[in-house]
Amino acid sequence: MANADIQAIMDFLPCQTPKQWLDAAIKQQSILLIDHAHCEKKAALSAIHFIHRYPDREKLVYQASRLAREELRHFEKVLALLQKKAITMTALSPSRYAAGLRRHVSPQEPQRLIDLLIIAAFIEARSCERFYQLYPRLDQELATFYHGLFAAEARHFQLYLNLATEYAHDDLQARVDFFAEQEKHLIQSEDKVFRFHSGAYNMS
Amino acid sequence: MANADIQAIMDFLPCQTPKQWLDAAIKQQSILLIDHAHCEKKAALSAIHFIHRYPDREKLVYQASRLAREELRHFEKVLALLQKKAITMTALSPSRYAAGLRRHVSPQEPQRLIDLLIIAAFIEARSCERFYQLYPRLDQELATFYHGLFAAEARHFQLYLNLATEYAHDDLQARVDFFAEQEKHLIQSEDKVFRFHSGAYNMS
Repeated sequence: MANADIQAIMDFLPCQTPKQWLDAAIKQQSILLIDHAHCEKKAALSAIHFIHRYPDREKLVYQASRLAREELRHFEKVLALLQKKAITMTALSPSRYAAGLRRHVSPQEPQRLIDLLIIAAFIEARSCERFYQLYPRLDQELATFYHGLFAAEARHFQLYLNLATEYAHDDLQARVDFFAEQEKHLIQSEDKVFRFHSGAYNMS
Repeated sequence: MANADIQAIMDFLPCQTPKQWLDAAIKQQSILLIDHAHCEKKAALSAIHFIHRYPDREKLVYQASRLAREELRHFEKVLALLQKKAITMTALSPSRYAAGLRRHVSPQEPQRLIDLLIIAAFIEARSCERFYQLYPRLDQELATFYHGLFAAEARHFQLYLNLATEYAHDDLQARVDFFAEQEKHLIQSEDKVFRFHSGAYNMS
């Protein structure tokens, strides 16, 4: 199951997470966990914003609400882990990643909805790829934690992608390819700040 | 249990819902249900905004996340009811109620947090008072539904109020009294639009 899931994620994503990011993550586990908590919260917020903006898209509204609840459950799990490790939850400036994707969203409907769904699919897929890449590099407790999250969230990207396919009037591929290019650049180019969705971050 | 719960809510609220609003609600059940769905969604959003704004307030963050999940479960229940009744979920302009309370929020922390918690307590208490007032006036299906929601949400206002008490440096009462006055005005004065949290609405 996990093999098929990571294969589907890697088939969708334009590149693997660079080794520099993984090296930095291992050395900055407190920031990794705090920012990860923020990411789960933001994933819930983003799902509720779909509901808010598109209340008449019945399937989207139902699925987004259930997804938001699941992200909040995971948020609470990260919080519990932070507390166990005596790491204080604090505010953190966001990485450039989500904003870097959203700046290309069409102002016109229904393309705006399609673009937001494609972006949500990329964010979910990248998060899961990072869970998968991280867990063999972490201690037993964190490895179990990230492996569990990988299994739970591995199909979220497909859910958003299926909705995009259902709501799109035309073929989706050109737009998916466009956002894949943007995503690849944000992941592979050098980044100034270390966060869960940062690009290549060089600690030296 | 229900008697003690409604008593605590009525002790906190400055007035009962006017009969004009209840009469209008019975006659506009589609708008009542659609706006109620939006209210559950907005309650979840408002809980997540507390997390977003005050990430280092540990108790608030945990409780708000669990609360947001519960509000989303109720949102899904209202959606299921809408679907069963073949009522289409649509966007609705918000009532003046929440904005009318929030315009008095202090711009200074920590008073801002205290004010937002007091307002959240009033919104939760008013919602529950309306669930309680509505259910004997509705058909069996809706009566069961609103009675269940009343039982589930009856103590939410106390949760927000307890947090406000915990985080306030001074006695809370003067500020609670101030917002009670605002709330009473918004509930008792005439309103132009019928929504779940409207003031006195005259259908004629």
